Amino acid sequence: MRNLLGAREISRQDSLKVLDTALEFEEVAGRNMPKLPTLRGVTVATLFFEDSTRTRLSFEVAANRLSADVMTFQLQGSSASKGESLKDTAQTVEAMGASIIILRHSSSGAAVRLASSGWVQAGVINAGDGTHEHPTQALLDAATLRREFFSDPKGLGLEGIHVGIVGDIAHSRVARSNVFLLNLLGAKVSLVGPIEFAPQGLENWPVSMHHDFDEFLDEKPDALMMLRVQKERIRERFPLVWGDYVRDYSLTVQRAKRLPSHGIVMHPGPINRGVEIASEVADSDRSVVLKQVRNGVSVRMAVLYLMWGALS
Amino acid sequence: MRNLLGAREISRQDSLKVLDTALEFEEVAGRNMPKLPTLRGVTVATLFFEDSTRTRLSFEVAANRLSADVMTFQLQGSSASKGESLKDTAQTVEAMGASIIILRHSSSGAAVRLASSGWVQAGVINAGDGTHEHPTQALLDAATLRREFFSDPKGLGLEGIHVGIVGDIAHSRVARSNVFLLNLLGAKVSLVGPIEFAPQGLENWPVSMHHDFDEFLDEKPDALMMLRVQKERIRERFPLVWGDYVRDYSLTVQRAKRLPSHGIVMHPGPINRGVEIASEVADSDRSVVLKQVRNGVSVRMAVLYLMWGALS
Amino acid sequence: MRNLLGAREISRQDSLKVLDTALEFEEVAGRNMPKLPTLRGVTVATLFFEDSTRTRLSFEVAANRLSADVMTFQLQGSSASKGESLKDTAQTVEAMGASIIILRHSSSGAAVRLASSGWVQAGVINAGDGTHEHPTQALLDAATLRREFFSDPKGLGLEGIHVGIVGDIAHSRVARSNVFLLNLLGAKVSLVGPIEFAPQGLENWPVSMHHDFDEFLDEKPDALMMLRVQKERIRERFPLVWGDYVRDYSLTVQRAKRLPSHGIVMHPGPINRGVEIASEVADSDRSVVLKQVRNGVSVRMAVLYLMWGALS
Repeated sequence: MRNLLGAREISRQDSLKVLDTALEFEEVAGRNMPKLPTLRGVTVATLFFEDSTRTRLSFEVAANRLSADVMTFQLQGSSASKGESLKDTAQTVEAMGASIIILRHSSSGAAVRLASSGWVQAGVINAGDGTHEHPTQALLDAATLRREFFSDPKGLGLEGIHVGIVGDIAHSRVARSNVFLLNLLGAKVSLVGPIEFAPQGLENWPVSMHHDFDEFLDEKPDALMMLRVQKERIRERFPLVWGDYVRDYSLTVQRAKRLPSHGIVMHPGPINRGVEIASEVADSDRSVVLKQVRNGVSVRMAVLYLMWGALS
Repeated sequence: MRNLLGAREISRQDSLKVLDTALEFEEVAGRNMPKLPTLRGVTVATLFFEDSTRTRLSFEVAANRLSADVMTFQLQGSSASKGESLKDTAQTVEAMGASIIILRHSSSGAAVRLASSGWVQAGVINAGDGTHEHPTQALLDAATLRREFFSDPKGLGLEGIHVGIVGDIAHSRVARSNVFLLNLLGAKVSLVGPIEFAPQGLENWPVSMHHDFDEFLDEKPDALMMLRVQKERIRERFPLVWGDYVRDYSLTVQRAKRLPSHGIVMHPGPINRGVEIASEVADSDRSVVLKQVRNGVSVRMAVLYLMWGALS
Repeated sequence: MRNLLGAREISRQDSLKVLDTALEFEEVAGRNMPKLPTLRGVTVATLFFEDSTRTRLSFEVAANRLSADVMTFQLQGSSASKGESLKDTAQTVEAMGASIIILRHSSSGAAVRLASSGWVQAGVINAGDGTHEHPTQALLDAATLRREFFSDPKGLGLEGIHVGIVGDIAHSRVARSNVFLLNLLGAKVSLVGPIEFAPQGLENWPVSMHHDFDEFLDEKPDALMMLRVQKERIRERFPLVWGDYVRDYSLTVQRAKRLPSHGIVMHPGPINRGVEIASEVADSDRSVVLKQVRNGVSVRMAVLYLMWGALS
């Protein structure tokens, strides 16, 4: 695993390896001394052409736990979104000593391009590229599902689990990465949202899409993954009425009650309370939002650790 | 001491413990190797909803000296000032591994709310909340006063010391925290400023308020604490004339001369030279501004150290 | 070497010491464990009144490699450019524990002023002051030239090497520092650019200036140092036509071909592909741009290391 570019680029075996390694790192987190010397002397660069404090911090904490040094390269403005800048910036960061580059970019395909161009020898982790992929998010979601549904998850896939992803699928890299990773791991995935938010190429995705959230709940999904709703997107680009959208696709207390007793609620965060999810649901026992955050650190430790093993 | 929320929430015993521990850490600072392994593996998060480079850096240096890992979470914009965001952000930061959260927030009461809501298990340090409190500033000021006036300050309060706090008391969390902590430690505190800057509830504060700075200097205070003046505040919200205010309440060379020979001048920084304090006074031997900064690091080390002891 | 303020302030002996020390640190970079405990417990502050992610990160990586703690103080806005703020900020940073201050400032002379004023005891490294100097850039350029042209560069100057610096010399601190350091080390330096970009005081500089780039290439320089072109500068302040400037002074493929076979192309970065340098030239074997970045880290390690030796 020299790079982690997308859920479509990773094998079932490799993803299970990440999840099993993350389980071990989770134990470390519980210790009095949660730091490992494993990546001491290794420099990891976060190269963020788009801001995301949460994802960046999660990677930085993961790197710190492994004793790596972190180089934080945050870029702003429009010039940084040009192709040549990605090349020059990545090469500069590597020349300064980075062995692993964690890339967040507004262009779909940026991470694949960086990894396949020969521009750098460093390993590349896609931390979100446009509307394309966000594979560590999908891995941490899979880690969360495994821990919720299996008492001893080591080595196991997600066979027998049914996950509903609700909201603006079309523009969500979280949805995209989850659809492919969950499918790879054997879960059944359903999409829920208005026709306007159906992704391009849906016919080739291993999913069914539902437009009626209430009807979908009859299927008794084991987990609902609520996506963040962006008001601007609905207002400006789609012939949807905001109030209607929220009424039809928000996870209200009433809807949450219709989940099976073991059903869980997921969200990649940050959540809009009262929009895609009712505040009571977000704070209820069903919600595993903070467990997702926690698993994010151990999954990212696992990715850094395995990647460094492959690179060195 | 699981939390440090305000000078009104801390006991005399605990505040003396912080000051005595800070004295010991001060010695460490003078060593060739000023780092201690005490908090190795502990993650401390600075959660700043309002920018303050100095306070944040002081805490970060303190955490570094104790070998803790620091997670810097800086938030901007108006959405971050909503209540639910504080909850979700703090919980996220804790889920990523933070054991202590250092909170700066524009809402008075934010730190108390975070600590008392049950939202997080992490210890909470109030690094400034609205116009309410900034307890580590008061502790470092007390540490500075002890070191200036006692040759062997260990265990001692501030009995017999008279401190004048000058300026916009009403909007100053520094003033508020100092009034209560200095009083708790036995010092006499006087406020100096125009009636417009008298704090609400002044009648319940253990202080006297003076409107004539020159007259007040007849009392020969041991220390003057000059507050930062914000021009906008005077112009927009108060029927005060800027020039008059500066003439009446600035610490000029003439006024500084009227202090007793042992009298010192304090300022929480950053200072406006020529506004609340003359440049010559800020640079004179009476000024302990840089000692305050230095003590800030050891006081914050002490707070982190004692809090970690109470939490683990 | 208590401070590093400019190429005009450093002796030949000291600059060779930096370059030789950098050669040793370069070897460290190649090791499995590129970290040294040398500056453990030392705090280095980057005090940037002007943004420069690359220079700042290069210093931070250098400090990390030596196990120093880094305090990043980034200032913005116009108030920060006043003199008193430099004094107060530097003193604050020192009071928090910084032993070395790395200063980037928009005013020419800021670093000299900070070092000579007695404001701080900390060592001062000039990381760029206005249009004046940027000595670590000149040192890393000299390091790069030594490594390119001598198989065993230890102890050697740059005698016999001819370097052409091309572009807006007048406003370039990189040019200024390079002219004086390269000359000190025995290289021949030529400037190339329109008369409008000739520096003030050129008659006292140890260089010749050429206005015709194509004619200059007849001299077969060993190295070309291309400067970053700022469009605004040309448009607003000089009676130059942008298109003419680029046509006359850009390093095109055709011009690069006219270099001697061993000729190299340098650039301080970030580069404007297609403006001062053709993309093909920037990516060609002649280009040592990334080697410059790499040498930047070891040169800055050497400066921090030697300065700490002189300070402690």
